[in-house]
Formats: sequence, C-alpha cells, structure tokens
Amino acid sequence: MTTDRAKIIECLKNADAFYLISHMQPDGDSIGSLLAMGEGLQNLGKDVSLFNPGNIPRKYNFLTGADRVHNEVLIRDPAVITIVLDCSDTERLGFFKEAVMQSNLIINIDHHVTNQWFGTLNLVDPAAAATGEIVYHILQDLQVPITESIAKSLYVAISTDTGSFKYDNTTPDTHRVVADLLEYGLCPGVISQKIFDERPLSFYMLLKEALSSLEMYANRQIAVMTLSRDIRERSGAKSDELEGIVNYTRNIEGVELGVLFYVENEQEVKVGFRSKSMDVSVLAGKLNGGGHPRAAGCRLYDKYAVVKEKVMSEAFSMLQELSA
Amino acid sequence: MTTDRAKIIECLKNADAFYLISHMQPDGDSIGSLLAMGEGLQNLGKDVSLFNPGNIPRKYNFLTGADRVHNEVLIRDPAVITIVLDCSDTERLGFFKEAVMQSNLIINIDHHVTNQWFGTLNLVDPAAAATGEIVYHILQDLQVPITESIAKSLYVAISTDTGSFKYDNTTPDTHRVVADLLEYGLCPGVISQKIFDERPLSFYMLLKEALSSLEMYANRQIAVMTLSRDIRERSGAKSDELEGIVNYTRNIEGVELGVLFYVENEQEVKVGFRSKSMDVSVLAGKLNGGGHPRAAGCRLYDKYAVVKEKVMSEAFSMLQELSA
Repeated sequence: MTTDRAKIIECLKNADAFYLISHMQPDGDSIGSLLAMGEGLQNLGKDVSLFNPGNIPRKYNFLTGADRVHNEVLIRDPAVITIVLDCSDTERLGFFKEAVMQSNLIINIDHHVTNQWFGTLNLVDPAAAATGEIVYHILQDLQVPITESIAKSLYVAISTDTGSFKYDNTTPDTHRVVADLLEYGLCPGVISQKIFDERPLSFYMLLKEALSSLEMYANRQIAVMTLSRDIRERSGAKSDELEGIVNYTRNIEGVELGVLFYVENEQEVKVGFRSKSMDVSVLAGKLNGGGHPRAAGCRLYDKYAVVKEKVMSEAFSMLQELSA
Repeated sequence: MTTDRAKIIECLKNADAFYLISHMQPDGDSIGSLLAMGEGLQNLGKDVSLFNPGNIPRKYNFLTGADRVHNEVLIRDPAVITIVLDCSDTERLGFFKEAVMQSNLIINIDHHVTNQWFGTLNLVDPAAAATGEIVYHILQDLQVPITESIAKSLYVAISTDTGSFKYDNTTPDTHRVVADLLEYGLCPGVISQKIFDERPLSFYMLLKEALSSLEMYANRQIAVMTLSRDIRERSGAKSDELEGIVNYTRNIEGVELGVLFYVENEQEVKVGFRSKSMDVSVLAGKLNGGGHPRAAGCRLYDKYAVVKEKVMSEAFSMLQELSA
C-alpha cells in the first residue's frame, strides 16, 4: 500500500471547502490535529467546518477554535471533501459515520498501524508518534505559515500522544517537529500543567480510596487495587477518571503487574491491567477481554470474590511463566 | 562576563588527565553530565576519575559508569585539571570542596543563572535547560563519537531537569539535542518509566496519608496537606520523598497555592509551598524561608497550631493581593 501523499497535497491546494472530523472520545491528538489542520486550511482561504462526535474535555478548551467544533451532523454536501483525522476505522466516527461515508471524496490521515485505509485517498504513517506530526508536515508542504495557535494545537496533539515524550513511539522526528513548534513562542510549562498535571479534587479523593485498598502479592510483583461504583460516586469522580487510577498500580517500584478491580454491582466487575514487561493483552484475552501489551482489561459477570479468585489465578500462572 | 568556551575546548583536547565532579544530593543532570563527560573524555584516551559527594539514587544505577563514581576524596594531585559540573557554587561540592579548590585549574561548566563563576575557566549558559545540554555541545566540539551509553546519560540529564520536557526551561535547542540523542537507539519508554514513574511502595503509603489529611481553603484555591515525622516513618518513606508529595497539592484543578506542613516535632514544622502563578518565594521570604517563584519553603520553630495559623494568615493575604 502506498500513501497518496502527493495527491492529497494537490487536493488540499485546489479545493475550496472542506469538512474536517476526528475520532470520538477525543484525546489531545484528535482535537489538536483537527484544530491545526482547520486553521491551516482556513489561512489558505478555504472554507472549513470542524466536527467531532464527542465532547471536548474541558482541559483542551484553551486551544483556539475548540469552541468552533460542531457536535451535530451538519455534513450535508457530498461534494465537499471530507478529511478524517486520527481515526483507525469509520466506527470511530460514531454518529457521524453515515454522513461522512456519503462524501464523494474522503481523505484519511492517520498514524494508527491498525488503520483500515477507508479513505478515497489515504495518508497513513504508523512511524509518526501522533497524527499531529503528520499534519505538521502537510502544513509545511502546503507552505502554510505556522501561527502560535496552530503550533499550540500541534504541540498538544504530539505531547499527549507521547505522554510528554516519554513513550517509545517518540522518535527523533517527533523532537525535531516539536523544536520547530516551540520557536513560535509556546510556554511548555503552562500547556503541560493544563494537560498533564491538573486533575479534579474528586480524582485525588478516589486515589486516596484506591491507595487504601492496595494489596501486594507474589513478592510485591503484583499490586491490586479495588474500587466500587459506590466509592467512586461518593468521591464525586467520573468513571473516565478510573483510567488514571489504574496506572498507579504499575508505578510502584518492583511491580510487574498492576490490577484494578472496579465492582460495578453484585454481578459485574470491570478489571484493568497494567504491566511493565508482561503481555497483559494475553492475560485479558484469557478472561474474554483484550487491549494492548502493557494496558488491557476485561469485564466479568460474577461476584467480586469469584472474579478476584479467577483473575488472580490467571495472573499468578502468567507471572510464573514469565519468570520460568 | 564572557565564557571561556574556546579555552576550555583547547584544555580538554590537550591535557591527559581529569578529575570530574558534580553536585551533592545528585539529581539526573548531576549524574548524567558527569558520566557522559567522563566517558567522552575517556574515549579520547584521557585518564578520568569521577567523583560525587552524595549517594547516587538507585533509579540511576542503570547508567553506564554509575558504579565508578567515587564517594571519597581521592582528589590529590593539584596538577590534574578538575572539571566541576552542574554546581552553582563551591558549597555544592560538600566535603570535596577543599580538595577541589586546591586544584591549579578548575573548569566550571554549568547552566544555573546563580552560578558564582568560581572556576579558572567558566562555561556558564543559563539558556541551557540542563548541564547535559552544554556537555553534548562540548562533546560535539571535541568530535567525540557519541555512544549509546553517552546518549543515555545525556538523555537522563536533560529529561530530568526539564521534567520530561514539560518545564518552561525547555527550548527548541533542548528538543534538537534530544532528537540527535534518540538516533543512538534509546528507548524513551524504558528510561522514562525508571526515572519518572516508578516510586517505592512507601511513597504511595505516604501519599495515602497526605491525601487523607487534605483540606481546601479560600474557595478551593488553597490546598493543604499535613504529615508528621511519625507518619512518614510508619509508612517507611525516606524524607526525600516529601518532595514528591508536595507537588500533589498544586496538581488539584483550581488550586493556586499548595501547602504541605511537615511536623518534625512539637517545636518544629517544615512548610513546603507550590503555586501555579503566585510567587511563593515571596511568601516563604516573609516566613524566613526562600526558594523559587513556583516552589519554595520555610522552617518555623513553634507548635503546629501556631505555625499553621501564621502561615495561613500570610497565604490568605497574598492570595487576596493576587486577586485584587
């Protein structure tokens, strides 16, 4: 499969109007790529409409244009080229899927290795740490002058998808692009505080409960935390804050496997796994779940005690295989 | 003041033996700069001895050469050139100070704006995010081939002093240097997990206690945590882990000022301040302490209740001035 880079650049130069959309449950790359590409094309005099099927998390509201992203399906003219950003497949378009698929020409720009090449024209680069990195190079090719707000959106896109340059997807090119972006007078300290370090009080109240429940197993190689819907609701935390909690299990020195049991009710437990080197997608797979090698999960329909017994037994045997 | 860059490069090229030393209570930049400069000079065929007046934190043990750093004063020949790295003044040399000061030629390489220019030759660049950044450019000037282990040491130096590129000291040049370093096959994910995310179990036990003590004041703009020596000792945490705890106060959404009271005993309380925009070095100064604009502290000799009253009263009035 070859990417249609040159054709895409031509298309972007020649057409006058575009719909832009990025994936549901938007993260920093989804939003940052969308806003940067939108502003870039607009600065070339194009007519641009921005869409996203999710709610933009409050912490990204400071990005220029965040208030211009439509949450309703106003994609109506099939003749307008639709640019889909940071979406591995069309399911990630949520309730926009049907409208987007009716477009005469879809440009698919993404960095996920699992991308389904659903576009009329596709630019998929799995070597890029973020879709924002690809968008930067496109804007360079288009000779769009980078403004401070474009630079900020791209910085957010790239820094969030790399965990502030900590993850292994970070490449020399990632740092070179960010070096260029910082030339536009960004304050990495101010941005990073907003997008990485700040969490609501309710998150910390939930973390306190999670730490209080901490149990260590297998010579402190397995860390287990347990929370319930009751406890979460009492802390005032939303369910998407559980994502941040489970990471704490892995961050304990010496821990190989971190587990978070989240008791939904008397017959249902959600289990999150994090690891340093073992493949937890295999562990989750054995329990009818799935995910990535270092972050996975499953959902089991039984009492907490039964679920815990089952999960820990699988976890112990996988850990034994690992050390064997 | 002009730096002696050219003279220093000549010196490094021409001399055959060097003592290298970096600051006490070593952090990633202190250790990383020391090891990288040491290996670089050694690869040029020089005779190199490495020194540090502190203990190297366990998490940096994976760096090549960390086990070769002497902790005792073996600096004996005043004719050997001494290179001092990442030290703003000679007090930071601890019990090595006297021996170093007897050297006939001291090369002072640092990035602290407060550097005292105590060297015979000085290369002080406050625009550099880390001393490791300066060392990289020196090794380039010396045409030392960068090995994977040099790259790793410099990466650690730069990433720790910038909080993984989150702090405002991070510049385009910082990212460009790191882009070059990553070309030597480093895994940022593996290194970052070791130096940033992992903390001992005792740290999390102390965090649980700190979160349990959390109080919010002034419309949730001030977050206060309280710990005591007793509680810390019971958690098994070392006193240097308090540094990590106080940051949590500031990371709560909406909080402008974070305060940690650490009750040493019935007559002594250590107070740490963190802020998002107010200048806490001024606040600490009013209480006979000091520090940086966003991170400062003081030590007060009175009962906890009296200290708290005094500190909170100053904090409230500073916050009022800020919003006035």
